Amino acid sequence: MGMINNLFNDDTMKKLKGNLGIGHNRYSTSAASEMVNCQPFVVHTAHGALAIAHNGELVNCESLRKEVLERGVGLSTHSDSELIAQSLCCAPLDISEHDGPNWPARIRHFMTLAPLSYSLVVMHKDKIYAVRDTYGNRPLCIGKIVPIGLGAGKPDVAPAEGYVVSSESCGFLSIGARYVRELEPGEIVEFTRNGFRTVDIVERPDYKRMAFCIFEYVYFARADSIFEGQMVYSARLQCGRQLARESPLDADIVSSVPESGTAAAHGFARESNLPFAEVLCKNRYVGRTFIQPSTRLRQLGVAKKFGALAENVEGKRIVLIDDSIVRGNTIGPIIKLLRDAGAKEVHIRIASPPLLYPCYMGINIPTREELIGNKLNPEQLAKHVGESLKPNKTVYCLPHIHPHIVGLISTGADSLAYLSVEGLVKAVQINKAQCNPSKSGYCTACLTGDYPGGLPEDLSW
Amino acid sequence: MGMINNLFNDDTMKKLKGNLGIGHNRYSTSAASEMVNCQPFVVHTAHGALAIAHNGELVNCESLRKEVLERGVGLSTHSDSELIAQSLCCAPLDISEHDGPNWPARIRHFMTLAPLSYSLVVMHKDKIYAVRDTYGNRPLCIGKIVPIGLGAGKPDVAPAEGYVVSSESCGFLSIGARYVRELEPGEIVEFTRNGFRTVDIVERPDYKRMAFCIFEYVYFARADSIFEGQMVYSARLQCGRQLARESPLDADIVSSVPESGTAAAHGFARESNLPFAEVLCKNRYVGRTFIQPSTRLRQLGVAKKFGALAENVEGKRIVLIDDSIVRGNTIGPIIKLLRDAGAKEVHIRIASPPLLYPCYMGINIPTREELIGNKLNPEQLAKHVGESLKPNKTVYCLPHIHPHIVGLISTGADSLAYLSVEGLVKAVQINKAQCNPSKSGYCTACLTGDYPGGLPEDLSW
Amino acid sequence: MGMINNLFNDDTMKKLKGNLGIGHNRYSTSAASEMVNCQPFVVHTAHGALAIAHNGELVNCESLRKEVLERGVGLSTHSDSELIAQSLCCAPLDISEHDGPNWPARIRHFMTLAPLSYSLVVMHKDKIYAVRDTYGNRPLCIGKIVPIGLGAGKPDVAPAEGYVVSSESCGFLSIGARYVRELEPGEIVEFTRNGFRTVDIVERPDYKRMAFCIFEYVYFARADSIFEGQMVYSARLQCGRQLARESPLDADIVSSVPESGTAAAHGFARESNLPFAEVLCKNRYVGRTFIQPSTRLRQLGVAKKFGALAENVEGKRIVLIDDSIVRGNTIGPIIKLLRDAGAKEVHIRIASPPLLYPCYMGINIPTREELIGNKLNPEQLAKHVGESLKPNKTVYCLPHIHPHIVGLISTGADSLAYLSVEGLVKAVQINKAQCNPSKSGYCTACLTGDYPGGLPEDLSW
Amino acid sequence: MGMINNLFNDDTMKKLKGNLGIGHNRYSTSAASEMVNCQPFVVHTAHGALAIAHNGELVNCESLRKEVLERGVGLSTHSDSELIAQSLCCAPLDISEHDGPNWPARIRHFMTLAPLSYSLVVMHKDKIYAVRDTYGNRPLCIGKIVPIGLGAGKPDVAPAEGYVVSSESCGFLSIGARYVRELEPGEIVEFTRNGFRTVDIVERPDYKRMAFCIFEYVYFARADSIFEGQMVYSARLQCGRQLARESPLDADIVSSVPESGTAAAHGFARESNLPFAEVLCKNRYVGRTFIQPSTRLRQLGVAKKFGALAENVEGKRIVLIDDSIVRGNTIGPIIKLLRDAGAKEVHIRIASPPLLYPCYMGINIPTREELIGNKLNPEQLAKHVGESLKPNKTVYCLPHIHPHIVGLISTGADSLAYLSVEGLVKAVQINKAQCNPSKSGYCTACLTGDYPGGLPEDLSW
Repeated sequence: MGMINNLFNDDTMKKLKGNLGIGHNRYSTSAASEMVNCQPFVVHTAHGALAIAHNGELVNCESLRKEVLERGVGLSTHSDSELIAQSLCCAPLDISEHDGPNWPARIRHFMTLAPLSYSLVVMHKDKIYAVRDTYGNRPLCIGKIVPIGLGAGKPDVAPAEGYVVSSESCGFLSIGARYVRELEPGEIVEFTRNGFRTVDIVERPDYKRMAFCIFEYVYFARADSIFEGQMVYSARLQCGRQLARESPLDADIVSSVPESGTAAAHGFARESNLPFAEVLCKNRYVGRTFIQPSTRLRQLGVAKKFGALAENVEGKRIVLIDDSIVRGNTIGPIIKLLRDAGAKEVHIRIASPPLLYPCYMGINIPTREELIGNKLNPEQLAKHVGESLKPNKTVYCLPHIHPHIVGLISTGADSLAYLSVEGLVKAVQINKAQCNPSKSGYCTACLTGDYPGGLPEDLSW
Repeated sequence: MGMINNLFNDDTMKKLKGNLGIGHNRYSTSAASEMVNCQPFVVHTAHGALAIAHNGELVNCESLRKEVLERGVGLSTHSDSELIAQSLCCAPLDISEHDGPNWPARIRHFMTLAPLSYSLVVMHKDKIYAVRDTYGNRPLCIGKIVPIGLGAGKPDVAPAEGYVVSSESCGFLSIGARYVRELEPGEIVEFTRNGFRTVDIVERPDYKRMAFCIFEYVYFARADSIFEGQMVYSARLQCGRQLARESPLDADIVSSVPESGTAAAHGFARESNLPFAEVLCKNRYVGRTFIQPSTRLRQLGVAKKFGALAENVEGKRIVLIDDSIVRGNTIGPIIKLLRDAGAKEVHIRIASPPLLYPCYMGINIPTREELIGNKLNPEQLAKHVGESLKPNKTVYCLPHIHPHIVGLISTGADSLAYLSVEGLVKAVQINKAQCNPSKSGYCTACLTGDYPGGLPEDLSW
Repeated sequence: MGMINNLFNDDTMKKLKGNLGIGHNRYSTSAASEMVNCQPFVVHTAHGALAIAHNGELVNCESLRKEVLERGVGLSTHSDSELIAQSLCCAPLDISEHDGPNWPARIRHFMTLAPLSYSLVVMHKDKIYAVRDTYGNRPLCIGKIVPIGLGAGKPDVAPAEGYVVSSESCGFLSIGARYVRELEPGEIVEFTRNGFRTVDIVERPDYKRMAFCIFEYVYFARADSIFEGQMVYSARLQCGRQLARESPLDADIVSSVPESGTAAAHGFARESNLPFAEVLCKNRYVGRTFIQPSTRLRQLGVAKKFGALAENVEGKRIVLIDDSIVRGNTIGPIIKLLRDAGAKEVHIRIASPPLLYPCYMGINIPTREELIGNKLNPEQLAKHVGESLKPNKTVYCLPHIHPHIVGLISTGADSLAYLSVEGLVKAVQINKAQCNPSKSGYCTACLTGDYPGGLPEDLSW
Repeated sequence: MGMINNLFNDDTMKKLKGNLGIGHNRYSTSAASEMVNCQPFVVHTAHGALAIAHNGELVNCESLRKEVLERGVGLSTHSDSELIAQSLCCAPLDISEHDGPNWPARIRHFMTLAPLSYSLVVMHKDKIYAVRDTYGNRPLCIGKIVPIGLGAGKPDVAPAEGYVVSSESCGFLSIGARYVRELEPGEIVEFTRNGFRTVDIVERPDYKRMAFCIFEYVYFARADSIFEGQMVYSARLQCGRQLARESPLDADIVSSVPESGTAAAHGFARESNLPFAEVLCKNRYVGRTFIQPSTRLRQLGVAKKFGALAENVEGKRIVLIDDSIVRGNTIGPIIKLLRDAGAKEVHIRIASPPLLYPCYMGINIPTREELIGNKLNPEQLAKHVGESLKPNKTVYCLPHIHPHIVGLISTGADSLAYLSVEGLVKAVQINKAQCNPSKSGYCTACLTGDYPGGLPEDLSW
């Protein structure tokens, strides 16, 4: 429990002996932040200790759960980790002819009953199995740790060699590892002292295309990670270019909400042949939940997280790019901040389609009711982001910089447009390499409601 | 004690009655994070409660301390706050003819004995006095809270009007306040229910120019704050322009270390007529003290805080702008990261002069021994930032992106240059307004060793 | 995790709906204070949720553990709770003819493989099963909650009726419950809405006598608890009487180490016809681990936890009763304290035999090497408790109270005697009622090395 | 801040160099548990650092506070510590002829303006001054650390010698110190390397007798402490004897509420020639604020902190001694517990008079409204302690022990009596030694309303 930087200090690391290991740095949500959900999950089995770590969420796994309970296993938590582990332990294998536990066969049995959505690593004795769900919904890739050719005679710096598997490749460079390749959907890879080899590829229950989460490109992944042979940054830049083609515009500058839409903004600027310039600076000291202590401040509705760089804003027609809109309650104060600082026009361009459906595959998306895309079309939303602010007829301006602006300024965006679903799919494919096109495909469930494998069994629209 | 966001929740705010108040959000350093250093500092006096808050550090105040102790006052801490408060209480005024405490006269007495360096607010009953040190070393400015013209009948949103004083103006817009003006060096301003007025201007002990901290422009202040009538962002952009004029260069792109040198990088790019492009992305999850668990990782010497955006880097000649170099141990890993990602040339340009001397006026600068500027000249430093990394003959490259790069690449920067002191002073004056030039001047002590008011009494070089 | 008083406040209690429940207030030892060991332990089974709580420790349960693992169940902790729960889930019952889970048959199966040592409660839907191990090593008794005949019309005080089971009866009076009876060794009692009934009695694997932990009488149980039909206080008083018969003595007063040997001291005093008087008062503010900051204080070797009541001590021949001696390092400082306060003679009498062997049934007893009874006979121990203090030739005395005592006083006890094993067994039977003598018997393993069911399988002397 | 045992570990102690020191282990009340109230309080003065620690509370010190403020000193807290320290710093001495600060003259000046109530130690450089208030309200005594005559050649156990001063003598024996004497009221004692000497004795403002807090004997002090030449235990035993003389009674046994009334109970038993026996055992695990989770349990009104030792209770006429009654809400449940366990009669005897008035001298006593002695006379209180329990017509009895008791039992005490004020004063003087009778006297303000020095200036009845 806790932050990695707090938990793994030099002392902790020195105690970690051995040459293989697994773990999972889970995103902390209040509900799930319990000791019981920490990973790896370790069980003692008839074949010795077994450890598993996984990313994602099991959907449509009721047959798996039923089988485990009916084999006389009690489940002490609601965690997927425990269910996976017990399923591997009690898998009804006809393995009397085998020596040992035959984990690949057990993993295949588990994957048949629970086809998605997960990246999974299973460690037993001196082996690690890496597993990607049959739809390829969650990413998983392999890296090779490269020996460093150093001067002789320093025993503590002896060349090291080995492998890593990770959901994202962005950390590889930091630990001296070279990106090798992604796992195929349904692939089970065995890592031993001698390297890695594919031991099985489990088929999808149906024969449709794979369903890689397209929101990894839009929002989740780090810009320097590689999926399908391309950098995420490049895919985002293409989204901005595509957005400029779909919703072009004459303006003075293109800008972004700091640290979320910047790649797309550069793409939009290049495609539009407009200059990119910063219009907002971050407030370094603001935490996640800045208080709004009074009605007055709520009425002002100003953006606490940002300051306007008035020089770049005053009198300008601005295209502001953001990567996505979820609830739609952060963009309004930013528009007002830019208007207060003298912006002539503010046009919003979102480098992804509207979010319309929840995700059941491990991504934290609000309910349909909370998703603003289900309530307003772009024109309504452009107006709404202004209306959600209380009307404010006084203009706050910085003296000596634009003292001439007086009177009423409109609130809301002058225009607002999303990227289309087709445009998004097209954009993320432009730089692709290394992928078999016949297998390629994306999960766009949160945008279209088309869930791979169908809706969870206990849900209905 | 603690973060503002944790301390001031809605419940806390509701308990705060009244219509005036003071406070200070101190930067937390381990040494000073004690309850006794929390502000405001409140003392009960013969004239009722007195509260003070201040920013900065008293230098050359031994005569002040001596006077306080000799008047029979015990000092229970080493904090400047207590010394200021007790000095105001026991000031040896000939005030028998006055009604009341005559705080302005007491403040003048204090300022005469302690001429710098502070921004100070003193609250007594229904008055607040705002005070800027006689050298104008610390900034202090006044804002006016503007009434909001809202619809009638909502009693909780009645128009409010009032004033704020703050070291930086960047927060004014967020609370609906309009920037009014800076205080003059030595100025004492009294705020009452009826507005504000200057009650005194205390002279500097000598007649040299004012000494405003030039590092506020370089590093400390937020980009949207206003000093001397100009935005800090604009001053930084001018620093980048000046740097391009002083140390010009042919290159493919200009970039910056994220969130510190961006304004200067844009200035450099415009002046050089080179394109600006991002080459680094931030690692969102890295805390301040990422562990380096083994010798191997230390040898790799890679930048944990950033990932390289390989597409923008590979084969490029890059000018990388940073705002300042203090100890010189962060730039090396960034250069290596860019080289590993295929950069052809990496040229470092620093938008400020080398730091050579410590600061005794409230700014946390290391000792002379730790300041890399005292140990290496630019050429040495350019080489050094590479040498500080252990030589590493293996190239890590991203497959399919630049598979052709093989063999030895040089470490260290291809060139490195600082902005000159004269260039810095010139740059921060370009956009200036509102200042009396005959009074204007800067404290460049950390760059030149020329301390306003001389070195602290207990120090000698 | 935590203290009951902190965890169960009014808010918590209001949230607890329903009319049955189980729990366990575990004695916190550092090793076992982990979330995973909190009770009740809840598992989801094919028959719905199952909760268990238990007191004691499983010994010789390797066949149980083996069966569980070989049935394909992974065990994620080393806790007995999980092992018991999974054993109940996967019990290899021939229960095709049954409706429902048939928990009694599963519990019998578990008890056959793990005959001792535990008190166990198992809750499923609207039933609770209470189980005492087959040797009766751990205690378990039933209480009946009696309705209160109150005035009419107060709905929130409606008469309540029901049952409780507990290891100790001492809490019954506090919750308005009446003691009913103990469970028999091996008895399984089912509690439902209609009352309770015995559903099975599982036999001991061999046909020797039951083996109730005799240290419950000596030390663990609260004085007002009832075992075998007698109050613990009365049994302890009889131990004191027996001790007086075995090791009689002429003295001025009989006293005790506060709050541990008082009942035995009263018994000793009555049997010896000597007066009882207090000689020590407790230091209210001393925690468990008072520091001894210097060699000097260690040499003084004085008792930090107590003060001597000099008036009752000076010039007296004192018999000091303690309930047991474990490591033997607390009695020495007390003797010295009494000597410093002027005691003429100090005779130690221990109301139990020397502890010689460790316990594997849930009682925390040190290793054989640490047990002083394995190293010294009573005469040696009497001398030793003095020798462990560094010789100290100066007498500290309270002025005006015994100023005449000068010179060397001896350290160590003037005599020291234990109660015999036979005497202890005899004493605890004197007041007994309600027990079938043919079944009765005690576990004296920590005193004699005679372990019921034999030593744990993985141990050998 | 925190418990001594947590704060002063071996590491902390090793860091404490030097051979003199002061401190105060304050009783933690929620209001006062702030860092600012930690002692010692240290101030830097014109003469160097000064440290003070004190026990008690200043009353009628407005002239002191006024003087300090008017001399231009700001007071940053409401703590007496700061007021005392600043008063010593700014004392208006005519000390031009002195070398140095002349602390005794400053202390005398302070004592003249603040005559009570405190024990005070003041440390400056290599001297400590110990001060007892002019009324002798708070206790203060001197102990001498005696060298230990140990074997030669062990350098770390070299003989140590020195002095200690403390409010209570009970800790002396534990650190190898011998009790020497009490300070006189108003006495200022100077401790130096060469021993101690009286440097001044400040007179009481009026010429009435001294006013030592009589509740130190009744409740606060530890039983083995010495005041006025007698052990507190002996004084309490005399209170019990006197109580037996004032309110005699025929009964079967005399007992006490564990750990508060035991000494008095032994005195009562001896004077009455009745046997003493235990009737209650403590519940080891109960914290201060045991929850009462339901109306039912509140109605049961049973004592959570104790269990009844039924064997000693059943059919007995019991005299139960307690040391004092404050709010009167703990004795009722104990009486009920004894009745439920079969007591024939329960007579309450309180070894002190009823508390009627609050204390302003550092002792935490509730307001007059909360003191039960102000609301009920003894007969009413005897009845009340039963009535406060809801009537409960069902008898809970332990089977096989007193199964014959059936039907209604009365609640409340059969009788209740206090010790008289005169009886208390007489009792605490019986064993006295070492005191000058002409000076002797007690503060009985909480019993009689007769406050030494009058009521605080800002209060009126």
